[in-house]
Amino acid sequence: MELDELVKTKESEKKTVDAYAAMQAGGSLEPYQYTAKELGSMEVEIKISHCGLCHTDLHLINNDFGISSYPLIPGHEIIGKVSQIGSAVTALKVGQRVGVGWLAGADFTCEQCTAGKDNLCQNGQPTCVGHEGGYAKYVYADARMAFPIPDALASEHAAPLLCAGITVFAPLLRHGVTGNARLGVIGIGGLGHLALQYGRALGCHVTAFSTSSDKAEEAKHFGASQFIDTSQPAILEKYANTCDFILSTVTAGLPWASYINALKPDGKLCIVGVPDADIQVSALQLILGQKSVISSVVGSRSEMQAMLEFSARHHIVPQIETYPLAEINTVLERLKKNEVRYRAVLEIG
Amino acid sequence: MELDELVKTKESEKKTVDAYAAMQAGGSLEPYQYTAKELGSMEVEIKISHCGLCHTDLHLINNDFGISSYPLIPGHEIIGKVSQIGSAVTALKVGQRVGVGWLAGADFTCEQCTAGKDNLCQNGQPTCVGHEGGYAKYVYADARMAFPIPDALASEHAAPLLCAGITVFAPLLRHGVTGNARLGVIGIGGLGHLALQYGRALGCHVTAFSTSSDKAEEAKHFGASQFIDTSQPAILEKYANTCDFILSTVTAGLPWASYINALKPDGKLCIVGVPDADIQVSALQLILGQKSVISSVVGSRSEMQAMLEFSARHHIVPQIETYPLAEINTVLERLKKNEVRYRAVLEIG
Repeated sequence: MELDELVKTKESEKKTVDAYAAMQAGGSLEPYQYTAKELGSMEVEIKISHCGLCHTDLHLINNDFGISSYPLIPGHEIIGKVSQIGSAVTALKVGQRVGVGWLAGADFTCEQCTAGKDNLCQNGQPTCVGHEGGYAKYVYADARMAFPIPDALASEHAAPLLCAGITVFAPLLRHGVTGNARLGVIGIGGLGHLALQYGRALGCHVTAFSTSSDKAEEAKHFGASQFIDTSQPAILEKYANTCDFILSTVTAGLPWASYINALKPDGKLCIVGVPDADIQVSALQLILGQKSVISSVVGSRSEMQAMLEFSARHHIVPQIETYPLAEINTVLERLKKNEVRYRAVLEIG
Repeated sequence: MELDELVKTKESEKKTVDAYAAMQAGGSLEPYQYTAKELGSMEVEIKISHCGLCHTDLHLINNDFGISSYPLIPGHEIIGKVSQIGSAVTALKVGQRVGVGWLAGADFTCEQCTAGKDNLCQNGQPTCVGHEGGYAKYVYADARMAFPIPDALASEHAAPLLCAGITVFAPLLRHGVTGNARLGVIGIGGLGHLALQYGRALGCHVTAFSTSSDKAEEAKHFGASQFIDTSQPAILEKYANTCDFILSTVTAGLPWASYINALKPDGKLCIVGVPDADIQVSALQLILGQKSVISSVVGSRSEMQAMLEFSARHHIVPQIETYPLAEINTVLERLKKNEVRYRAVLEIG
């Protein structure tokens, strides 16, 4: 075969992928096609069946974090079947059902990776920042970031676990929030309603803090021992010194002093939602109770595997709304208006 | 003996204690006498030989924390000899050299105490808040809060360890800051110069951050691997992603974002000094690196014993200036002006 023929053949093997993309910051999503790069030796191609919608996708579309590039194909709660594997991939097989979350790749060699904290890899490749995400027919990821999904989890339920689930499960696991721990969860949305379920399954006493009193019954159903309507923040005074660990899943600012006050001594307020405004806390208030404001970002591969096994065994699944990919803009509007109960999932393939 | 005679005898047994007290918020200290209460069964009377001066004493004199009552006898870095023991005290003997720090008592029954975190006791009795402190000839404390001092430590050196020492040692111990950890210490004063010594003795790489370039040589002598003059905070950009744990010992506000940036992923900024203004941090900055703002307050009894044993074995002592008790106002002035190198100690008995 002549060289130019060989090149032509290689070109013809490159897949054209149907997707939806934002063409500029804040824009609606439009049908968009991209040509897949040649599959790397450690990569897999995944034919997507489902993709969850995360609040972070909205932030990325709007370039709220200043890290977006356009055309931007969002989506990082991906479930699908492996359709091609790179030459060096041994742990996955074509046809196997896998999930991909926030990261599609890492260097696996840096200090953080070798310490098992690959979610903190300094050269991590986010799935939908500078890389084509999951609002698409296919996605490409390092095989080490594609996680086999336990049979007990339906794909539409598994999708949101890849970001919403791991984001709330990992800090509970990492900080030993179990047993007699009193867990508080601020915000009962996509993340919060999963946190209530994990908290209950870990044996904790779980308090739901929410400004939406209409979620009280559902919150208890998900696992809350009690529901506190915080639409009048003054009510928090009654809950001083009651929580060992509070997980804040919201993107709104909070009455920080009141929540620090709701912590017991040595308590931790763990931020996993990204509020627009800075967090403002009194050093004296922290010190007097030896309290902390900590944070967590998704989870490591080890934590991801633990989350999937735990979710399958405890039947922890999100409550979802499903939509075809073509209705993406309608769903994004619902997400913006906080109308989704509790996670939206695109049915793709 | 008749009842009124008995009462008279008991009264006569009550000791009049010479002390120095602030009579109102912000006032100079004046000679003051108080009558000691009857010794409780678990209490000890300690004839004070030395008392260190802590920045918190200044805050208490000024009622900066809104918890002071007057007359206020400051002093919570106390060394002396047991001069009387309560009827139930078995662990200490008259004549034994002991130290008392921030707490003179705790309930020893609450959730925190039973978990070994008696420094967080909700009914803890601070030594010089609502209780007569150590700028005096005697002090009274629960025997369980009076710590035997290893022979290797001179009393004038041991005094500042009871607050300054434990405040910086306990968080390092608790959070496993040792081995290859890269420790940053902000502020090279009473606390900071001890933190440098503990950091070195724990085997860490230690970075001193200070706005006082004239402390560079001494900081290296105390244990700093490098000294960063932060009088131009922009220099901190060069130290992005370099520290696993930063201990902030200062009472000034800080360029919080720059120090969060100086943390490596999963790094912790631990606040032990009390800045006047709120700490302000970006949630996104925290989350992207899974970073935390934590705090620590003195240490538990177990940590106190560990600190004393470690300090004695590693010859860790503060660099001090000593003064007679009568010069207390002169020393407080030096402390206010940050002129003390590095801890002032009153020689009392």
